Amino acid sequence: MSNRPSGRLADALRPVSLTPGAARHAEGSCIIRMGVTEVLCTASVEGKVPPFLRGQGQGWVTAEYGMLPRATHTRGDREAARGKQSGRTQEIQRLIGRSLRAVTDLKAMGEMTVTVDCDVLTADGGTRCASITGAWVALHLAFEHCRRMNVITRNPLRDQVAAVSCGVWSGTPVLDLDYAEDSKADADANFVLTGGGGIVEVQGTAEGAPFSDDELLALLRLARAGTAELFAKQRDAVGM
Amino acid sequence: MSNRPSGRLADALRPVSLTPGAARHAEGSCIIRMGVTEVLCTASVEGKVPPFLRGQGQGWVTAEYGMLPRATHTRGDREAARGKQSGRTQEIQRLIGRSLRAVTDLKAMGEMTVTVDCDVLTADGGTRCASITGAWVALHLAFEHCRRMNVITRNPLRDQVAAVSCGVWSGTPVLDLDYAEDSKADADANFVLTGGGGIVEVQGTAEGAPFSDDELLALLRLARAGTAELFAKQRDAVGM
Amino acid sequence: MSNRPSGRLADALRPVSLTPGAARHAEGSCIIRMGVTEVLCTASVEGKVPPFLRGQGQGWVTAEYGMLPRATHTRGDREAARGKQSGRTQEIQRLIGRSLRAVTDLKAMGEMTVTVDCDVLTADGGTRCASITGAWVALHLAFEHCRRMNVITRNPLRDQVAAVSCGVWSGTPVLDLDYAEDSKADADANFVLTGGGGIVEVQGTAEGAPFSDDELLALLRLARAGTAELFAKQRDAVGM
Amino acid sequence: MSNRPSGRLADALRPVSLTPGAARHAEGSCIIRMGVTEVLCTASVEGKVPPFLRGQGQGWVTAEYGMLPRATHTRGDREAARGKQSGRTQEIQRLIGRSLRAVTDLKAMGEMTVTVDCDVLTADGGTRCASITGAWVALHLAFEHCRRMNVITRNPLRDQVAAVSCGVWSGTPVLDLDYAEDSKADADANFVLTGGGGIVEVQGTAEGAPFSDDELLALLRLARAGTAELFAKQRDAVGM
Amino acid sequence: MSNRPSGRLADALRPVSLTPGAARHAEGSCIIRMGVTEVLCTASVEGKVPPFLRGQGQGWVTAEYGMLPRATHTRGDREAARGKQSGRTQEIQRLIGRSLRAVTDLKAMGEMTVTVDCDVLTADGGTRCASITGAWVALHLAFEHCRRMNVITRNPLRDQVAAVSCGVWSGTPVLDLDYAEDSKADADANFVLTGGGGIVEVQGTAEGAPFSDDELLALLRLARAGTAELFAKQRDAVGM
Amino acid sequence: MSNRPSGRLADALRPVSLTPGAARHAEGSCIIRMGVTEVLCTASVEGKVPPFLRGQGQGWVTAEYGMLPRATHTRGDREAARGKQSGRTQEIQRLIGRSLRAVTDLKAMGEMTVTVDCDVLTADGGTRCASITGAWVALHLAFEHCRRMNVITRNPLRDQVAAVSCGVWSGTPVLDLDYAEDSKADADANFVLTGGGGIVEVQGTAEGAPFSDDELLALLRLARAGTAELFAKQRDAVGM
Repeated sequence: MSNRPSGRLADALRPVSLTPGAARHAEGSCIIRMGVTEVLCTASVEGKVPPFLRGQGQGWVTAEYGMLPRATHTRGDREAARGKQSGRTQEIQRLIGRSLRAVTDLKAMGEMTVTVDCDVLTADGGTRCASITGAWVALHLAFEHCRRMNVITRNPLRDQVAAVSCGVWSGTPVLDLDYAEDSKADADANFVLTGGGGIVEVQGTAEGAPFSDDELLALLRLARAGTAELFAKQRDAVGM
Repeated sequence: MSNRPSGRLADALRPVSLTPGAARHAEGSCIIRMGVTEVLCTASVEGKVPPFLRGQGQGWVTAEYGMLPRATHTRGDREAARGKQSGRTQEIQRLIGRSLRAVTDLKAMGEMTVTVDCDVLTADGGTRCASITGAWVALHLAFEHCRRMNVITRNPLRDQVAAVSCGVWSGTPVLDLDYAEDSKADADANFVLTGGGGIVEVQGTAEGAPFSDDELLALLRLARAGTAELFAKQRDAVGM
Repeated sequence: MSNRPSGRLADALRPVSLTPGAARHAEGSCIIRMGVTEVLCTASVEGKVPPFLRGQGQGWVTAEYGMLPRATHTRGDREAARGKQSGRTQEIQRLIGRSLRAVTDLKAMGEMTVTVDCDVLTADGGTRCASITGAWVALHLAFEHCRRMNVITRNPLRDQVAAVSCGVWSGTPVLDLDYAEDSKADADANFVLTGGGGIVEVQGTAEGAPFSDDELLALLRLARAGTAELFAKQRDAVGM
Repeated sequence: MSNRPSGRLADALRPVSLTPGAARHAEGSCIIRMGVTEVLCTASVEGKVPPFLRGQGQGWVTAEYGMLPRATHTRGDREAARGKQSGRTQEIQRLIGRSLRAVTDLKAMGEMTVTVDCDVLTADGGTRCASITGAWVALHLAFEHCRRMNVITRNPLRDQVAAVSCGVWSGTPVLDLDYAEDSKADADANFVLTGGGGIVEVQGTAEGAPFSDDELLALLRLARAGTAELFAKQRDAVGM
Repeated sequence: MSNRPSGRLADALRPVSLTPGAARHAEGSCIIRMGVTEVLCTASVEGKVPPFLRGQGQGWVTAEYGMLPRATHTRGDREAARGKQSGRTQEIQRLIGRSLRAVTDLKAMGEMTVTVDCDVLTADGGTRCASITGAWVALHLAFEHCRRMNVITRNPLRDQVAAVSCGVWSGTPVLDLDYAEDSKADADANFVLTGGGGIVEVQGTAEGAPFSDDELLALLRLARAGTAELFAKQRDAVGM
Repeated sequence: MSNRPSGRLADALRPVSLTPGAARHAEGSCIIRMGVTEVLCTASVEGKVPPFLRGQGQGWVTAEYGMLPRATHTRGDREAARGKQSGRTQEIQRLIGRSLRAVTDLKAMGEMTVTVDCDVLTADGGTRCASITGAWVALHLAFEHCRRMNVITRNPLRDQVAAVSCGVWSGTPVLDLDYAEDSKADADANFVLTGGGGIVEVQGTAEGAPFSDDELLALLRLARAGTAELFAKQRDAVGM
């Protein structure tokens, strides 16, 4: 039983949907919705690699993240107008890129780059985690497109990857914080997990009082349950 | 009869829809679709004006424009990552802002600013014109919101404004160019017109050979017919 | 008869002069004066093209625009010190470049780039139009220089191009607005026209009330008369 | 027993020293050395707060991070010359700031800001963790300075905070990775812990294969042992 | 006797002219020509001071420097387009500002700022020195304008200031290097001197072999002779 | 006899030390201390030259300068965070680079670049001069390193170079101004001199009243005496 603001049970995800093919021009794309949060993920394929990888016979996967100015309750500055990306934006896009590369066989890609853009259309907490979960679908679809075009012979993804944020709310560990919960949680941890059960990234932050080892483990258990649902949704979305 | 690439008649708009309320957090919003082109327009209200207008008892309406990196056939640079907005982006957002101000009674707003963000989700030609048409709907809805909140006593919009691009395609003046037509047109003109029949902006450019006075007039006549349809769709969208 | 602030007749240009050879080092140059407005135009030739044109056997013409900080009544920021060009500057330099390319046979240039710099020494309205008219002279002279150097066998300019702004002042269409007139005009339109009578660009903007089709046509007629004079001055300046 | 490149035991820190008072002008300062890694931490006090906190009667603690161009094996770009801080730099300085705020009673500070600068003089792995550990000493000393000056009546630090990186090296969890170990580790986790035993931040990343829950716990246990030593060194450095 | 490239005697200035009133809108202005070098200097008055001087009852004089892209033999980048001023530009404008402040009674100005813009129209060596000499005339005229407007009761300039570059050319000290001489000189020194005989700035640089004390003194003597002529021209230009 | 704030005699340097080998990773390095002022100089070797020198068979020596934010009495902005280097920083790093190149046989280097970074750890006046003196030691050591690695056959340094600032304090010429003296000096001159007695750079500035020829000469004599001591310290530091 939980009395969290959302009324959800402690271990309940928000309603989740993964809609593939949302962007007409992209090689792979997906809109992920987790409750009100909505992120458009597009995967773009380019037949070359960044300078530091040239001639090494391997590929690269990278990500960029953005938020529409009015994705949020009050309008934020447009980063393009301000002339630079915030530290938060850069931190998130680096995390998305690392998470995707952790389950990609870069050697199997050959010399190509896939750039996954995650653009938040509506924000209500958990945008970085939703981006990772949706980005995997877009990336998978882009690789399938390349396979159909005979650019690669097999899909270089070795596993699924998905992410969810958990937190300690009013003393209770809860799954999938929305914005109202996140802004009042005592602690907040994002887990990026693989289909095979491994941890790719864990980022836990105490907002108020520090948290304990037991709390960290409780959050991790919730995240495993939550990502299990997300992995099933991903497989549906890509037809696996 | 026309043999334009789209197969449309010379005076036919693409299928148009204006979906109000698309952005959950914004005071006013609208997704406009013209064929494949799709633009999310959000209007954000803030209770103050830019420094150059302070203390003058009037309001301000401004616009920003952006394109998601993979709105286009091949991925474009993210302007936020590149650290500046292109000349094209700035030109377009200045045009949208001027067009909206042309039909707004700034005095009647009081000291408030409405920023309309036009973000292109999918691009297939005509994004600046679609932005103007959709922005008017978002702006109208935001003003209605302010009226319901008793911030203003009447909607400061004096008229409707909408825009459409026309061009000379293979010698024939045609309405509402899509991307394939635009890239091969001899001339291209964007018309921003008011519900009352006036011209707010006209921007005509000869891509190949210069065009004649008669061609300019033919394009203007097509634009009048096209915007008449757009004005009807706008009224539907805002419940007028 | 007109009662415009300048005292000029409705269809009268300001005194115009085009002084060729004003910049010692440039391949082609010209100072254009229209009344008080004074713009230095220099054309610089470089034996290569931008990356997107390499290997295509054609040339490129581009333009940059700037205003000295105290060209205006009150000092403006130096764009180099502020670290970026304004949207207005970028809009103008894109317009100048397009206008020049519209009358240039890029194929006939071979792989070379001409950059025309238009720097406003004194501003009193109409600087973008004066820039185009003067830029054509600088470009013509630079091409003649290349011909004398046997870099090209004929001048790649197919026609003349000149520009003038017109406006509706106190209900009357008038030619060649100066700053005082421009800031109070109801509507304002810049026309870029060719020697052969074609329209290259038209940019009309209603500052106050929208304007009508008839007004647009009246402005266009004034612009034709005005550019006829400018074309004659251009021919004098280049010795045609 | 461990065969890690450094020859250290799996649970052995590098030689650590914390030298207080290293910067003559700063209110508090410290040089921390962990093996070859050397970071200068200075705490600067300013009697005002950032705009978003004004008038709320509380203070602020923030951090900036930098690396001298030749702190590393091969020279890196100077961020000031390149004109922006990298995503990595911003991520690290945000982490340092959050870690310090987690143990500071901001209300007890009154309206003042302490900026802690962490500048890496020599880098050999673990610079972000060393920065946090050294920054706490600099911050403590700066607060003591303010207390002696009667600006505050008690030191607003509620607890100690220190950080250490652990990793899985060749299958074995090991403490305090140096550069050679870090670049080949399978997984890498930074733990920011408090003197009272709580977790402030945990950032774990799988470089190669994902890691398991047991590995995460083993790394956490190593980090607890390592930070226990660091807390003792910190107390020595500030004379507690 | 001298065999310098210009054919001038060792102690001969290039032909110099100072044309006051060249910029219609500026409170004070001057075009200085030294041989082919040509700089437009404008002085703009603003009734406030920079933040660091507010409320101190004194004024400020500052300078900005720029070069038109085609002032030089081959076109240089436009600094506004590149998005930043070069180190050379900043160095020069700081020098001009210091030189003018050295002869200005800032207290006597009251709270006003004069910004002197020095824009090089044509460059042939010695642009920074010419800028200083011309800037003094523009500044003097602007102060006279303020005096006539009764903003100040007397001209706050305490003395004249002018500058000239000297160099060692092929073993011989020579006055007023032009571009061809400057690029081959062994040493090069800019002297900023006052009407009263004092040294405000000296900047000597050995381009090849270091120079001796005697050479430094010889260059200083040449500079004194050269600036004597410049002071006379300045007095003519301002009607003293 | 002198009553300067520091209590030093008019011709006395502050205590000077040059500690070679201070930076573990650099090919050459040195910490220079002049009184409280402390600068870390590192020389980094790279086997290529900037584009403008490619294929000319010569090398390049360049310098960058920075100041840690809290090197000064009150914290300064971090230039990397502000996004650009100040004019002062650029001026100083250009001066250091020119000074080093004046005593380097660039032809003898072959195609390599040495970048000398001068980072001020503590500032108390004279940082640019200390940087030059220390940079020479770092550069010498880096060249010796290259010689031992058989990259070059002899050290390309032709002479020593060192710098010192002198000033007129309360009417008396004094050597090696510290911060307190510098901020009140009437005039201030930096001299960059060679071991062989030549002048590489002289930069004199009147802060208050202009200075005379005699004062300039007196300052130069003091600088010669001061650099003689610095040259001896440099030779000790590099084992000459």
